[in-house]
Amino acid sequence: MIKVGIVGGTGYTGVELLRLLTMHPAVELTAITSRKEDGLPVADMYPSLRGRVNLAFSSPDKAKLTECDVVFFATPHGVAMAQAQELLMAGVKVIDLAADFRMQDVAQFEKWYGIPHTCPDVLSEAVYGLPELNRDAIKTARVIGNPGCYPTTMQLGFYPLLKAGIVDATDLIADCKSGVSGAGRKAEIGILFSEASDTFKAYGVSGHRHTPETVEQLQRMTEQKVGLLFTPHLVPMVRGMHSTLYARLNTDISNDELQVLFESTYKDEPFVDVMPFGSHPETRSTRASNMLRIALHRPNNGKTVIVLVVQDNLVKGASGQAVQCMNLMFGLDEVTGLQHIPVLP
Amino acid sequence: MIKVGIVGGTGYTGVELLRLLTMHPAVELTAITSRKEDGLPVADMYPSLRGRVNLAFSSPDKAKLTECDVVFFATPHGVAMAQAQELLMAGVKVIDLAADFRMQDVAQFEKWYGIPHTCPDVLSEAVYGLPELNRDAIKTARVIGNPGCYPTTMQLGFYPLLKAGIVDATDLIADCKSGVSGAGRKAEIGILFSEASDTFKAYGVSGHRHTPETVEQLQRMTEQKVGLLFTPHLVPMVRGMHSTLYARLNTDISNDELQVLFESTYKDEPFVDVMPFGSHPETRSTRASNMLRIALHRPNNGKTVIVLVVQDNLVKGASGQAVQCMNLMFGLDEVTGLQHIPVLP
Amino acid sequence: MIKVGIVGGTGYTGVELLRLLTMHPAVELTAITSRKEDGLPVADMYPSLRGRVNLAFSSPDKAKLTECDVVFFATPHGVAMAQAQELLMAGVKVIDLAADFRMQDVAQFEKWYGIPHTCPDVLSEAVYGLPELNRDAIKTARVIGNPGCYPTTMQLGFYPLLKAGIVDATDLIADCKSGVSGAGRKAEIGILFSEASDTFKAYGVSGHRHTPETVEQLQRMTEQKVGLLFTPHLVPMVRGMHSTLYARLNTDISNDELQVLFESTYKDEPFVDVMPFGSHPETRSTRASNMLRIALHRPNNGKTVIVLVVQDNLVKGASGQAVQCMNLMFGLDEVTGLQHIPVLP
Amino acid sequence: MIKVGIVGGTGYTGVELLRLLTMHPAVELTAITSRKEDGLPVADMYPSLRGRVNLAFSSPDKAKLTECDVVFFATPHGVAMAQAQELLMAGVKVIDLAADFRMQDVAQFEKWYGIPHTCPDVLSEAVYGLPELNRDAIKTARVIGNPGCYPTTMQLGFYPLLKAGIVDATDLIADCKSGVSGAGRKAEIGILFSEASDTFKAYGVSGHRHTPETVEQLQRMTEQKVGLLFTPHLVPMVRGMHSTLYARLNTDISNDELQVLFESTYKDEPFVDVMPFGSHPETRSTRASNMLRIALHRPNNGKTVIVLVVQDNLVKGASGQAVQCMNLMFGLDEVTGLQHIPVLP
Repeated sequence: MIKVGIVGGTGYTGVELLRLLTMHPAVELTAITSRKEDGLPVADMYPSLRGRVNLAFSSPDKAKLTECDVVFFATPHGVAMAQAQELLMAGVKVIDLAADFRMQDVAQFEKWYGIPHTCPDVLSEAVYGLPELNRDAIKTARVIGNPGCYPTTMQLGFYPLLKAGIVDATDLIADCKSGVSGAGRKAEIGILFSEASDTFKAYGVSGHRHTPETVEQLQRMTEQKVGLLFTPHLVPMVRGMHSTLYARLNTDISNDELQVLFESTYKDEPFVDVMPFGSHPETRSTRASNMLRIALHRPNNGKTVIVLVVQDNLVKGASGQAVQCMNLMFGLDEVTGLQHIPVLP
Repeated sequence: MIKVGIVGGTGYTGVELLRLLTMHPAVELTAITSRKEDGLPVADMYPSLRGRVNLAFSSPDKAKLTECDVVFFATPHGVAMAQAQELLMAGVKVIDLAADFRMQDVAQFEKWYGIPHTCPDVLSEAVYGLPELNRDAIKTARVIGNPGCYPTTMQLGFYPLLKAGIVDATDLIADCKSGVSGAGRKAEIGILFSEASDTFKAYGVSGHRHTPETVEQLQRMTEQKVGLLFTPHLVPMVRGMHSTLYARLNTDISNDELQVLFESTYKDEPFVDVMPFGSHPETRSTRASNMLRIALHRPNNGKTVIVLVVQDNLVKGASGQAVQCMNLMFGLDEVTGLQHIPVLP
Repeated sequence: MIKVGIVGGTGYTGVELLRLLTMHPAVELTAITSRKEDGLPVADMYPSLRGRVNLAFSSPDKAKLTECDVVFFATPHGVAMAQAQELLMAGVKVIDLAADFRMQDVAQFEKWYGIPHTCPDVLSEAVYGLPELNRDAIKTARVIGNPGCYPTTMQLGFYPLLKAGIVDATDLIADCKSGVSGAGRKAEIGILFSEASDTFKAYGVSGHRHTPETVEQLQRMTEQKVGLLFTPHLVPMVRGMHSTLYARLNTDISNDELQVLFESTYKDEPFVDVMPFGSHPETRSTRASNMLRIALHRPNNGKTVIVLVVQDNLVKGASGQAVQCMNLMFGLDEVTGLQHIPVLP
Repeated sequence: MIKVGIVGGTGYTGVELLRLLTMHPAVELTAITSRKEDGLPVADMYPSLRGRVNLAFSSPDKAKLTECDVVFFATPHGVAMAQAQELLMAGVKVIDLAADFRMQDVAQFEKWYGIPHTCPDVLSEAVYGLPELNRDAIKTARVIGNPGCYPTTMQLGFYPLLKAGIVDATDLIADCKSGVSGAGRKAEIGILFSEASDTFKAYGVSGHRHTPETVEQLQRMTEQKVGLLFTPHLVPMVRGMHSTLYARLNTDISNDELQVLFESTYKDEPFVDVMPFGSHPETRSTRASNMLRIALHRPNNGKTVIVLVVQDNLVKGASGQAVQCMNLMFGLDEVTGLQHIPVLP
């Protein structure tokens, strides 16, 4: 059994990790820390876990965590980088669900997250945890920077096009929509039920932290200079993310060839589903599961290809992806504990 | 492996059966019938099942169904009673999620469902599929009448009180609230998003089909003449049911004794969670799981005890309960394939 | 024109007052105070008011407020009682939307609100602002305690029965359901979209502040000793309140007579709609309007009458009712500025 | 008083017309027809209108309609064109909320709506009812083709840019999101609460009827050949529309100049609100009102300008716009009966 610790288990990515790891056949949950909730039984905060998780939140405790084989950080940005070094030295693997280890470009990190990066050397060995693109590196990694939710959809949606070099990488548009759980479990007016329900809006249109992360990764797929316009929106639903991606074709290609390109790229991927050309994927078709679904459109057979991508922002967009990385890091079958069928309706 | 057939798999109880049975380790899905959707791949109607269910809906086919060990009827009322006899003679067990085999009182059935009961003899051997109250009978049953969603909450909430004879059975009130999925997958104006969203209403207050079913079962728990007032309401959410039960105590009893009564009654039940006295269970704490949670209140230590009961109407209130019965009928561990942790948030 | 001031206009009752008073033909908005938002243009916080309300929030300013003819307090409990005396001495009328002037029983107020009542003499002249029951007193009042949202539905639903003396007043049950806006605009985890959406729960079942307020008023309607069981629930919708009231008849009466009793009681009321016997009112049929709708049921012609009551908790349950009181206090037609048709869908 | 008739008042644009016209000071509602609901009191179908609309639906009746000054068609496509001629000959003005009189290009109409256009001569005199762009023509029109909801947002969002000739008209993208009420009041599975709630999807990506309508109008604003990519999405909310528009600048221009361009274009428009540069308008800030709000963004001061446009799809996107046209056609102040403040929250 893999001994697992979770630092900061009180947020939505934390409780989702708890849900997935508790049902995971090869995992033994060893510690869940929360400075604020020290002593509180986890099931008291999340009644959905009553009778299933008997641990209580504990104050962060070096000894307890160094007993683990792997520690997940479901914390605000900046926490993982402060503790990673010590855990690694104790032989504990680290998976950070925040941004500390996502970007190799420290300057960009510090610009967008407003804090200095305190352990660039750990960052330099960190692997970006997107299995579909980094599988081998993840298998041998000691530190994982788990991708952001939006970046996961943008990368998997644009990848086949950029890799094939058939679109103008300097002119990509991603019009993305996320459920409110993506904003986390924080006491903020803007995400109150009475503020976010029965309404729709864009946010961060002039600039969002997920842009530099995504550009850094997209840049690895192409020799062109990547230009990305990313427009996030808030949808009155709890879970789910829908990205509508626009790319300009720079070559003659048939719709069948486009479809084949995507199907062949992902044919062996257990969690990427390329739907028939012209499909309209619904976010609920991935609810509470690690699946990500993709569908292609090309209005009037014009020069623009539209890629629709859906996922559950808390699973493939966060905690499920982290567990997928853990499976790879410990030599387990990649799908272990992640084959839950989406909950529909 | 248990060979399973589903008749009428296109509704919400049908797709929920598909979700649960596909993940069930001891089940082999053999046939899914739908006269209307004959030939349509199941995953085309429910993309959540893409890559997991490869069957197509088939026109009801006696041969195929008689090959099964058990057949679930997720059909409108009246269908199961027309086919049960034949299946039983072929040695196939039957679990009906509709009302055909719920009530032994044929007159009541015909009054409330407006159709004649065409196989009273099968009805006479049918077992009411509420494991917490009928476990032994279910184990040896050939035919199960799976309980309605509301009746499940009312029976498990009132049972300890009636069995102990400490409340006035002639004066019970059940103020119940259900998510919209309880109304099924029918093209009806009243359950359109724009009609049922951001609003709340009662329905069927002057009389609802689940009253006679519940009364028949409650009557088995007490010598008093049961009097039940049942008021259903529609909640703008997809899944979930919350029943607020009011009963008059006819004896002196402390709150601790009440709590102990409920805890001892259900202490060995894997799917009934008695929460601490004074708790407020949320429906989402059972979402997509087979758990039912109960909490007791007694305002001003008065003569009225309030029992709060929550469940997922599509799981413990329908398909999950049916699978729980199947497990018992085939000698499996009762919790097999039903230990999914609720999805929260 | 009536010069109006609003103290604490940043919450939901505040913005609803702004919406109603801005469209009110006889009102001139003079001051809106908020210590926290001093200087912020009201329309910056509530873009729905852009181009319609040009005032900015100002720090509470005695001079400005004493220029008004009436001041509404849309503040937390305790604020109005601290300023009312001074305003009255300056000839300014006061309408408090909080609880400071709702209950004449100071002990009960202090027990349930946990603060001492600092101006019992103003309280002693305060009038309970429910026009249907207190119209004449309101017309001549200087201070109004505006009713709570739940109490409004319970009083108007039980009133005809208690007044007629045909039910057992010692044994009333009110199972009530409210939209989330009733919890106000506070940064609290429990009312986040991701916590309150797609779920349903009861709260405060063991005791709620609106019980003593309601009992004090119901007691005025009958010689019996009022016994009320009040169970509030939270509905995943923004606006709307649905109260399901249960009362035991203590006399022989036909359903027609019951219906006539309610219709005659409210026949001249502009904002109370008695629907046909057996109707199921929807909360949305009152959305954004000052209407309250009532429908009667009597299952099996039994001894229990069920009264269904719906309203918009922010209008008839709060700000609309306050404006209705203002109209009466200033000799205007009671319906002035309150005849907006409900928004449906 | 203007005598008004409504043909087909049972849908959402119909009930919204009833809400607006009933509160309109210069209108006398004369007839509401519905073949299917002949004889049914309007308030029985829409309880929100109880006590306010006393008419019953009547079977379409030539005599009754020819008594009107204006008739609104809130009917499926094809109905208005069959009756318009006759009404015009009787001196009755016609406003069609469907598509019959929106497009002058009959071939395009027939291609996208799949029915022959039976009165091209009336079409030839029909005026496209977008007051901000066609005010003078509307004032003297006898027949109005009321714009679609999506086209209204796209036209008012792109207009200042195209008119100024500062963007590439051949390469416009409109990523639009609509509430479910836009799909109408039809008994269809796809828009059931349990299908459309808590999920998000695109639809009609490969081609939507509103594209040709919009292109025809945009083409009037520029000499370039308009190329528009329009991607509609369904949002789990009842009312509201959010369009995210992308246009490539073909010239050097500062953000201040862009802002001034929009503000000066709409400075006299009562129902178009240009918000500060960089704002994020919410659909709810227009709920139940005739306001449309616009905000500009320009990420990294790049070559792409993003225009965010929000409106209530049933008001400015349909019935409110139709009433605005009526006001102009009858020489009333354009804002008469349309100054309702948006309902927030």
